[in-house]
Amino acid sequence: MSNTPSAGDVVAAAERIAPHVHRTPVFTSRTLDELLGAAVFFKCENLQKTGAFKFRGACNAVLSLTDEQARAGVATHSSGNHGAALACAASLRGIPVRVVMPETANPAKIRAVTHYRGEVLPCAPTLAAREKSLAAYVEESGATVVHPFNDAQVIAGQGTAAREFFEQVADLDLLLTPVGGGGLISGTALVAKDQDRGVRVVGVEPAGADDAQRSLRSGERVANTAPDTIADGLHASLGPLTFAIIEQSVDDIVTVNDADTVHAMRWFWERLKLVIEPSAAVAVAALMQGKVDVSGRRVGVILSGGNADLDALPW
Amino acid sequence: MSNTPSAGDVVAAAERIAPHVHRTPVFTSRTLDELLGAAVFFKCENLQKTGAFKFRGACNAVLSLTDEQARAGVATHSSGNHGAALACAASLRGIPVRVVMPETANPAKIRAVTHYRGEVLPCAPTLAAREKSLAAYVEESGATVVHPFNDAQVIAGQGTAAREFFEQVADLDLLLTPVGGGGLISGTALVAKDQDRGVRVVGVEPAGADDAQRSLRSGERVANTAPDTIADGLHASLGPLTFAIIEQSVDDIVTVNDADTVHAMRWFWERLKLVIEPSAAVAVAALMQGKVDVSGRRVGVILSGGNADLDALPW
Repeated sequence: MSNTPSAGDVVAAAERIAPHVHRTPVFTSRTLDELLGAAVFFKCENLQKTGAFKFRGACNAVLSLTDEQARAGVATHSSGNHGAALACAASLRGIPVRVVMPETANPAKIRAVTHYRGEVLPCAPTLAAREKSLAAYVEESGATVVHPFNDAQVIAGQGTAAREFFEQVADLDLLLTPVGGGGLISGTALVAKDQDRGVRVVGVEPAGADDAQRSLRSGERVANTAPDTIADGLHASLGPLTFAIIEQSVDDIVTVNDADTVHAMRWFWERLKLVIEPSAAVAVAALMQGKVDVSGRRVGVILSGGNADLDALPW
Repeated sequence: MSNTPSAGDVVAAAERIAPHVHRTPVFTSRTLDELLGAAVFFKCENLQKTGAFKFRGACNAVLSLTDEQARAGVATHSSGNHGAALACAASLRGIPVRVVMPETANPAKIRAVTHYRGEVLPCAPTLAAREKSLAAYVEESGATVVHPFNDAQVIAGQGTAAREFFEQVADLDLLLTPVGGGGLISGTALVAKDQDRGVRVVGVEPAGADDAQRSLRSGERVANTAPDTIADGLHASLGPLTFAIIEQSVDDIVTVNDADTVHAMRWFWERLKLVIEPSAAVAVAALMQGKVDVSGRRVGVILSGGNADLDALPW
């Protein structure tokens, strides 16, 4: 499915993946609400299986395969949460999964893939090498490539987090999500702009990987050439599918610097006792730094993941 | 109230504090369940107000004061979670609160008290100095001393966590809690042994502060002379009230070493994405090290707190 997904595809995805995903809880902080003069709700996808929202999209993609496609397995390249998510999703269906990862990948991320019996195929740490390795494997195996974000089933799956969020919290005025390749915010926007809910959707990017903001403002998709941010899940640039949805349905993209992200991450761990990774903390930082006008509003934040490196905390 | 509290006092405490405490959620881990061949449920008092179960007992004690007593305020000595809990409880009633703390106390713990407008009275870092400072203040102010654990209203308040736990999870066979001064396990045992529920209650102590195990086994209350453990919330020795309840109603006390506690704490953060402090992690360590026979059982663990020092992680 390479066409633009619809809100209806999110509904279908939600039904498809319901038996397998966690309905993640929503947390609040009275301290933060008083600070901001707003009511903020955190949708805890750090508590999702594999520690990130990525499992939703990967699960929807894997469960959408025909039996014949499924027999040949799935493959992707990823140095982060999508690889583990796809491996976990494939394990549900008992099908082969191969994840092309750079030789320099964090050992914890490699273990996360092998934990679900995914095969890791190491390659040189360049995009060209990754794509070549992946293409060679697909040619040989007939596996289906599940792209981390530029894929309609993946986007529809990611949208199920927002769909649940609306069921859990009434009358949200604004939804905030981190933006990397754009899968999460695209799925979120499909849900938020459906049925005239009148909900604003705002993305948050690290200043050091701000392709989505530049793309949205210029009306032309541009890429991050040398991403420089601690939020390692947000290095990717938008794809054609995600850019199209963002241009149509996202109201704004704001940026935060890494120092503010680290401060927000530490504050969140200390106050809410929840482990979130830097890529999730960007959205908290945007709130704390006043990058989004939330005064008097009901604000939903999707905390994208919790796979922080506990051996190298950034403070 | 210095008599031994009853299960009925826990019921009264639960009604009294209900408007003020969080009904904390229960978390599970499929990975851990598979590892242990058990069904383990974690009651997340790390998500309680002030980051620890201590708020329950402090809240019950403060709300139980007569208006005349309340006017003179409350006081305690604490280098840890009880001080912040009492300050927060006192702020609910708008009454004065003074916490005697050693000059060497962690600045974060001091801030936690002042955050709730508690007054901190520094003293030399000895038990004698603390008690002298506290006695002098009480003499002058007429404040009521709220002991961190050897107090019937405090014990009854701590028992409300177990009471909620039984409402949230059916058919628990075994409850596990950390043991410091014994307030939490005493309150827990009052609830678990009420109405012939047939639930075992087991405490977990650090090997370097094992007074409760020694006391239970010898039938005579002994003290920790030089507690040596990373679990800084568990340095205290049992009091007469908590020892009496433990002797009557606790089935066993097991110990864990600090290395296993640190391992369990890190594993818990990584897998469950929840921040727990070392004093809570001892109970997870006991499970992971097979210190308690849980095979085939439904096991409830009360995670006592989440106030870990993020600047000095023990791994």
